[in-house]
Amino acid sequence: MLFGGIEAGGTKFVCVVGSGPDDIRGEVRFPTTSPTKTLGEVLRFFREQQAQHGPLSAVGIGSFGPVDLHPGSPTFGFITSTPKAGWPNTDVAGPLRRELGVPVAFETDVNASAIGEWRFGAARNLETCVYLTVGTGIGGGGLVGGRLMHGLVHPEMGHVRIPHDLSIDPFPGSCPYHRDCLEGLASGPAMASRWGRPAEALPVEHAAWALEAHYLALALVGFVCTLSPQRVVIGGGVMDQPQLLPLVRRELKVLLNGYIQAPEVDDMDSYVVAPALGGRSGVVGALVLAEQAVAGGARR
Amino acid sequence: MLFGGIEAGGTKFVCVVGSGPDDIRGEVRFPTTSPTKTLGEVLRFFREQQAQHGPLSAVGIGSFGPVDLHPGSPTFGFITSTPKAGWPNTDVAGPLRRELGVPVAFETDVNASAIGEWRFGAARNLETCVYLTVGTGIGGGGLVGGRLMHGLVHPEMGHVRIPHDLSIDPFPGSCPYHRDCLEGLASGPAMASRWGRPAEALPVEHAAWALEAHYLALALVGFVCTLSPQRVVIGGGVMDQPQLLPLVRRELKVLLNGYIQAPEVDDMDSYVVAPALGGRSGVVGALVLAEQAVAGGARR
Repeated sequence: MLFGGIEAGGTKFVCVVGSGPDDIRGEVRFPTTSPTKTLGEVLRFFREQQAQHGPLSAVGIGSFGPVDLHPGSPTFGFITSTPKAGWPNTDVAGPLRRELGVPVAFETDVNASAIGEWRFGAARNLETCVYLTVGTGIGGGGLVGGRLMHGLVHPEMGHVRIPHDLSIDPFPGSCPYHRDCLEGLASGPAMASRWGRPAEALPVEHAAWALEAHYLALALVGFVCTLSPQRVVIGGGVMDQPQLLPLVRRELKVLLNGYIQAPEVDDMDSYVVAPALGGRSGVVGALVLAEQAVAGGARR
Repeated sequence: MLFGGIEAGGTKFVCVVGSGPDDIRGEVRFPTTSPTKTLGEVLRFFREQQAQHGPLSAVGIGSFGPVDLHPGSPTFGFITSTPKAGWPNTDVAGPLRRELGVPVAFETDVNASAIGEWRFGAARNLETCVYLTVGTGIGGGGLVGGRLMHGLVHPEMGHVRIPHDLSIDPFPGSCPYHRDCLEGLASGPAMASRWGRPAEALPVEHAAWALEAHYLALALVGFVCTLSPQRVVIGGGVMDQPQLLPLVRRELKVLLNGYIQAPEVDDMDSYVVAPALGGRSGVVGALVLAEQAVAGGARR
């Protein structure tokens, strides 16, 4: 069976056709402009692909948000109250379902990446895992027994509260809702505000990186103590600085302080890892969502 | 089918025979003494019950810990490194399985309570939920799609890190591992150390309760943002003070600050609730674990 996958980002869309990361038959990426134009390009791509490779069995979407994930809701499959111009209240899943005539699975971008890493990447088939992305925002998703978490809405891991010692870090935090939640202290924009230049312009030996690792590790303690994940996958633009991941691992070990007795946490190098699918976690996850929609195990 | 349920506590054991909270055929409670004596009393009770009501199909145990929950481990079903005299390295599940000849499900006490509340109590059949107990220690469990979380070990929700403003609360925290983690700041013993008397001796209008609610709500923000639970159930001895739960609800609403858009969190009175099974969450949960052991869905 052949599936379509869409990573619907606020800056760009990536669409693929295939069955998994080693079987991508076609791929396209284009900037996110207006909904009409962008969704038109998506449809054109999938129609061309169908003409070439045969019919798709389903399409999966991992979308920027906020999104409505409640299957019974009249706005299910919509991007809802986004600040992105032109996109509030946009039905993303509906037009694809109607025009392509296939089941369409719809998820947050982070949940799509989480399921991509769980199925084909660094957290393959683990009973419990966490995926975190640290970039313009901080988002996370997890799986328990192969299931994404969706009871209330979806995880909002960037908005957990962590200790913030103002005598060491007087930066008040940048989250408009919570000020010094994790995202307010440790997102790319928070780093840029605190240090007066973009994260990627800070030298490797800058104190910013130890502080960043400290905040991320404090949050990871919470995720580990809450979900008991067998592995933590961390991606996102801020994590592209190669000095950061080792600092996070070291700090997490210090903070856990031997309390959690499990062989996995004894080997931090394999416990906290980068996404195995690199920048493709999201779009591969979208293929997995499509596959699950056909299997009947997913939210359409 | 008839099941046995055991709440194995460090102070007392409760054993029941039945099929659910409305069908308890027999019940006994006795103090936790030596393993030989205590497990002997457990066996005697279940044998008497079987003579009276017919054979049990399985037995479930929710145990104090630390415990070994890894089904493949040679010490699966053991209480491991507990400080309780006489109990380190005690096989709890094994003797029951051998002597009674039935499947025996083994879990932490908190996970048993969580599944009890999920199946028959305040979180009935929710897709995602959290159960927290605040007493001598702080522990929590959650279910996602009916599944307890066990990837790494089991949740250790008492050990998440939360903001601690030393200028408002100079108490350094009482956790021997992490000092001012949630348990170190908000357990019953932490309250007693901070204020110089037991929590239950603090007057209703004492500032202790607002501070306690603040710490619990900070942790709940984390659980809500991580698991996206549809409901949070909080029990334990500290929560017996009736003024506390309303303070926790109010503080959680303030801290979330409208960020999570869901009807459930708009109605805090039904979002954060006391256990519907009262003090019986654990032993009823043990019956549920027994039932799942027969159905093949559980860890034995």
